[in-house]
Amino acid sequence: MRSDVSAPTANASNEYALQAGFSRYRELTLAGLLSAIPKREPRQYLYDPLAAHLSRIGKGIRPALCIATCQAFGGEEWQALPSAVALEMLHNAFLVHDDVEDESELRHGEPTLRAQYGMPLAVNAGDTLNALSVKLLRENLAVVGRKLTLRIFEEVDHLMLESLEGQALELGWMRDNRSDLMPGDYLRMVLKKTCWYSFIHPCRIGALIATREGADLDRFNRFGYYLGIAFQIQDDLLNLIGDRRKYGKEIGGDLLEGKRTLMLLHLLRNADYADADRLRGFLSQPRAERGEADVDWTIDKMHRYGSIAYARSVARHFAGATLYEFSRAYGDLPDSDHKSFIRDIILYMINRDL
Amino acid sequence: MRSDVSAPTANASNEYALQAGFSRYRELTLAGLLSAIPKREPRQYLYDPLAAHLSRIGKGIRPALCIATCQAFGGEEWQALPSAVALEMLHNAFLVHDDVEDESELRHGEPTLRAQYGMPLAVNAGDTLNALSVKLLRENLAVVGRKLTLRIFEEVDHLMLESLEGQALELGWMRDNRSDLMPGDYLRMVLKKTCWYSFIHPCRIGALIATREGADLDRFNRFGYYLGIAFQIQDDLLNLIGDRRKYGKEIGGDLLEGKRTLMLLHLLRNADYADADRLRGFLSQPRAERGEADVDWTIDKMHRYGSIAYARSVARHFAGATLYEFSRAYGDLPDSDHKSFIRDIILYMINRDL
Repeated sequence: MRSDVSAPTANASNEYALQAGFSRYRELTLAGLLSAIPKREPRQYLYDPLAAHLSRIGKGIRPALCIATCQAFGGEEWQALPSAVALEMLHNAFLVHDDVEDESELRHGEPTLRAQYGMPLAVNAGDTLNALSVKLLRENLAVVGRKLTLRIFEEVDHLMLESLEGQALELGWMRDNRSDLMPGDYLRMVLKKTCWYSFIHPCRIGALIATREGADLDRFNRFGYYLGIAFQIQDDLLNLIGDRRKYGKEIGGDLLEGKRTLMLLHLLRNADYADADRLRGFLSQPRAERGEADVDWTIDKMHRYGSIAYARSVARHFAGATLYEFSRAYGDLPDSDHKSFIRDIILYMINRDL
Repeated sequence: MRSDVSAPTANASNEYALQAGFSRYRELTLAGLLSAIPKREPRQYLYDPLAAHLSRIGKGIRPALCIATCQAFGGEEWQALPSAVALEMLHNAFLVHDDVEDESELRHGEPTLRAQYGMPLAVNAGDTLNALSVKLLRENLAVVGRKLTLRIFEEVDHLMLESLEGQALELGWMRDNRSDLMPGDYLRMVLKKTCWYSFIHPCRIGALIATREGADLDRFNRFGYYLGIAFQIQDDLLNLIGDRRKYGKEIGGDLLEGKRTLMLLHLLRNADYADADRLRGFLSQPRAERGEADVDWTIDKMHRYGSIAYARSVARHFAGATLYEFSRAYGDLPDSDHKSFIRDIILYMINRDL
């Protein structure tokens, strides 16, 4: 079913421009990713798995936001490209380690590196993606000069630590089977884990490059925060009630892992004594012992107690606020295809199948 | 027992200067490491475990080599300090992920991060050490300027990829229970996994900073390679026949993990059919099913087939060659306490308890 976010929806020509934009940026990014992989040994244990993994990247929202923002601020595509590729490389480093940490089997409908090559080689492969992203950031030198290259490193330092801190919160909450968390805890965790690296910094870096530090970069902070929250809640909802073929991961996987989503926090706080007790018991089991019947039971309770509707409504509010913040972050720029593309990305993201 | 490396041994006053040098550099490095840890949440799930881990760093050979080389080339201690701290931070990132990959329980006689906090938080903690090391490298900016800061990033890019490639080889060989490897494979793997990041690049970066790119840095490549091989073989021997209280890890742990050490390669090639068959069978079991009796049996066979003696003799040859290469790498410098300290480090390392 569709979400009922009350926002202008993309019409057919917008939709065409949006997909064409995504395709172009994705193609540039993919070429950059693959050419960053050293063409040497050890292929079997390192570089072949990485190339296979990278050739399956998703839509490339992060590089698209970075390059399009650079262009909307008057910069050129090629100026933002090394940074955009580095951001996508970093994103993939996070994904590979996420899959290790969560012991996930599927990603984009294919076996994860961990599932295919084993945990040890997957940890090492993720580390290598990290190292390659640092190397890519140094390639900025030939494109934007020394000063800006180091300034971009500063942005990346911040996004790395925020993401790792957010990830530590999420993993720690799962490990300790926390049931005392409030919606504010969830929002703070997602700001850290997702918003900075996926939305705020890609825009900041794009504008930084275009304006050579001339723009006030904090204009993107609220915009990326709201967009990231709307995105993450939708992603969490898709994991529960999405179409497996489209989603490409195990449906209900977040519940098997015990992820503290907004729906789960709502259910833990609102279920009656017996249901909450059963839920905590289910979550306290080792992952291997959590079964599909428990997942189905939990999703059913989330519908009954209004947890799904609650999360949808929060996502809808953040989506609306994102549109307002878009006008604050990009409103003073002249109209351009790039500015329209970014607006269409937002509409696309907040209108995904729910 | 002592190794019988035929080399000048440190006398009492050398020994005192050596330990005093190590202490000073270690203290500076430790202060830098601990002050690089953000003083904020999430403490429980991230920064407290990292601070506890870093407060147990070893002797600090990498920062000592880096700073002393900088000084031997006429530079100042403070100029090399951010790089030295970053190298030790990176080393610890490797150790934390090594312990995850090997499922190790002990490190420096204490539980590993993985054993204490679980695999997921340990993977994330290792990633954070990595991110903090990149942040530290950016602190070079205030000390050595933009150009050299970026030049040091280039050195670090190389050592990262070499180390990760070497680690991929070692992990892949274990995973596939390889019995077709020759001594040359081992040497190449150790060059990649250990020598670049532990010995060659610390010296290169120290000299780079002191001479502002004036020195030929390749002079350290052979020196660090030989030193690293001598060091690694000794480390592998200590794992088999060392004193547990001094070593701080599980004795025989490498065999339980199936690590392709020089001794194991020798035994696989030289054992008779029945023994080689039993050995391969033992190595093909999951780690949990490999027991102490198998470890004892293997160590006994390594003595009988001369595998221990063979590895000792290779280590001794590389140790001798290291002394020769020391004179090529540092011989043209004026005598100084720093130059003597580096020579004493070599003597110390190649004379460790065997």
